[in-house]
Amino acid sequence: MSNTTPTRRLWREMKVFDGLHTLPEPMAVITDGARVASLVPMREFDEGLAEGCHDMGRGGVMTPGLVDCHTHLVFGGSRADEFEARLEGVSYEEIARRGGGILSTVTATREASEDELLELARPRLEALIADGVTTVEIKSGYGLTVEDELKMLRVARRLGEALPARVVTTLLGAHALPPEFKDDSDGYIDLVCQEMVPAAASEGLADAVDVFCEKIAFSVAQCERVFEAAEAHGLPIKAHAEQLSNLGGTAMAVRHGALSADHIEYLDEAGIAAMRKAGSVAVILPGAFHTLRETQQPPIAALREAGVPLAVATDANPGSSPLFMPTLMLNLACTLFRLTPQEALAGMTAHGATALGLKGEGRIREGAAADLCVWNIDTPAALAYAVQPGRLRQRLFQGELTHAV
Amino acid sequence: MSNTTPTRRLWREMKVFDGLHTLPEPMAVITDGARVASLVPMREFDEGLAEGCHDMGRGGVMTPGLVDCHTHLVFGGSRADEFEARLEGVSYEEIARRGGGILSTVTATREASEDELLELARPRLEALIADGVTTVEIKSGYGLTVEDELKMLRVARRLGEALPARVVTTLLGAHALPPEFKDDSDGYIDLVCQEMVPAAASEGLADAVDVFCEKIAFSVAQCERVFEAAEAHGLPIKAHAEQLSNLGGTAMAVRHGALSADHIEYLDEAGIAAMRKAGSVAVILPGAFHTLRETQQPPIAALREAGVPLAVATDANPGSSPLFMPTLMLNLACTLFRLTPQEALAGMTAHGATALGLKGEGRIREGAAADLCVWNIDTPAALAYAVQPGRLRQRLFQGELTHAV
Ligand SMILES: [Zn+2]
Ligand SMILES: [Zn+2]
Repeated sequence: MSNTTPTRRLWREMKVFDGLHTLPEPMAVITDGARVASLVPMREFDEGLAEGCHDMGRGGVMTPGLVDCHTHLVFGGSRADEFEARLEGVSYEEIARRGGGILSTVTATREASEDELLELARPRLEALIADGVTTVEIKSGYGLTVEDELKMLRVARRLGEALPARVVTTLLGAHALPPEFKDDSDGYIDLVCQEMVPAAASEGLADAVDVFCEKIAFSVAQCERVFEAAEAHGLPIKAHAEQLSNLGGTAMAVRHGALSADHIEYLDEAGIAAMRKAGSVAVILPGAFHTLRETQQPPIAALREAGVPLAVATDANPGSSPLFMPTLMLNLACTLFRLTPQEALAGMTAHGATALGLKGEGRIREGAAADLCVWNIDTPAALAYAVQPGRLRQRLFQGELTHAV
Repeated sequence: MSNTTPTRRLWREMKVFDGLHTLPEPMAVITDGARVASLVPMREFDEGLAEGCHDMGRGGVMTPGLVDCHTHLVFGGSRADEFEARLEGVSYEEIARRGGGILSTVTATREASEDELLELARPRLEALIADGVTTVEIKSGYGLTVEDELKMLRVARRLGEALPARVVTTLLGAHALPPEFKDDSDGYIDLVCQEMVPAAASEGLADAVDVFCEKIAFSVAQCERVFEAAEAHGLPIKAHAEQLSNLGGTAMAVRHGALSADHIEYLDEAGIAAMRKAGSVAVILPGAFHTLRETQQPPIAALREAGVPLAVATDANPGSSPLFMPTLMLNLACTLFRLTPQEALAGMTAHGATALGLKGEGRIREGAAADLCVWNIDTPAALAYAVQPGRLRQRLFQGELTHAV
């Protein structure tokens, strides 16, 4: 087979989770270059189809490459010492006095160069890739100056060039109030709207704009201003909302056409109705729920009832979810939030893609991108049931085999 | 360097967690063959010490190889379908009617040959090894006939020959009542005492004997009979106790000199006092707590106060803890049970070893076994703080480098 014709690959006897459902019969799957060429039930399979194909093996489970639609992978410093101090009984006040919390990440991120941030983020993204991720969203939000936010977004873009994964970037200037704007959060929102959003848009560094709408962060009115700036620059929006209280940020965000509302533990009936009407995705983040030892469950049953698509993501970040393992999130989504394994998997494939504005991706079907994982398991549910690194047998990104054991 | 002289290896600038504490200064560590030869603070390090040593690099964290002192790694079948059915709303009764629960694992384990069980268990042990384990306990308990229990123990022994880890075996005949003894649990305990324990002892297949002391399993009196049989054959004992209720199994077990009492969510003051007096290890199993969504916390503060050593283990098993990742347990022990990261790490090194009757192992000090892990992290606490596969840089088992990235 020459390098000038696209590689055809054939898997036999695959149990296929197609991004929404597990197909009822064992399948043969053929890819041609960067696309899925055909999906054939084994009982209709003809050996003639194998002609010119690389034999990729048989048996096991095939899923779309995982889509992690909410991460904060780029940051400086570590919060391990803070985690330890808290468990050793040091008070929050004392940790804040020592410069801990999110502002310690902001300080370390500002101090780091673009190259340094890239090298720090690389093993984190490698961990996601080794666990099956092919598409990952990465937010800024620890720079909190125009230059430092753009630096973070540049690092995110470079990660997508350096490693075999598609990186989707999000400007999260309205993540926390930087110390320079203490007591002037409206002034900081001015900066986000008038400088950060325009700069990120004009440099093509942001695929979307996000906000943290919460008492400890920014008000609904402030977040709405950020969304208006994003709209003015043609950028899609999304929100961290209803995580710690019910402010109504979700309803406002989806009124502006938000791709997703994320966290949403405190979302109420009105918020759910607004999401259903808008067609937005609810992104649930069980890693933060676990790490923060929250008890308020997101309204999963009501969201399911309303037909709101549920995505699941790692929220990988140094403070509230230092968990760089998407398959662990499948387990947490089922165990903590009572998603079914199929729902959790759809949340990290098809619905994760929709949350990124990539509706129709995160699927296995004819013509879809050949972003695929093959796992050494018997049933798709096993991905959520057991936490066991090393089960990824093969991973294809854009038709290229990037992982094989 | 010839193959006939033992290999000397040198690491510089290591942050060393020695099994009980993090050493205050950066260290140079030298191994000689299968033993740790010396530990030298860097400020006292002399380049002459490097002579004849393989340079193993510098920086990062060194810990003893992890000790997972409570697992059920050998079993047939999968319970992923049952996990899925339960989340899809199928009742416990219906799952039982379909043959689910522990008896489905018993059926599948009985049906599997020794070779089949070995191949099923291999990737599970490989996952533990890839996450830093060098010593692992493996229990029987899904055979529940003399022949099938011995078969499981033989598989456990063979795993220790097939893979670079030390396997410690435990006979857990008194795990569940097999269907053949329905309504005759005393008759089954007779079989355990009169046939299983003697057979496992005479074939040298069991390093210890365990029981499941619980309303849904065996009574304190029944467990005591098993312990008396074990004593008669010179085998150490341990117990699954006080997991779902407070029966007093722990106090009885430690009165018989149990190495450990495991789970112990419901342990009371009297039980803690008995453990302190006996010098037994409390093995906490946060994976089962997580999977079963328990709310009763083990009495960590009181155990700490009493000076009872705390071990942490995966309890890896197909029903209540399908979690084959020891570093995840460090995170769960801290987040769910409020252990400090140092306590969690000691629980998977020095105290884990003590729970296996290997007191003094799971340590890094001169003369200790060269079972070591080097991690790409800045502080030992990071192992518990973040869940991130792929941070293991090097793993030594008995002085041999078995993993390097
Ligand atoms: Zn977030
Ligand atoms: Zn157990």
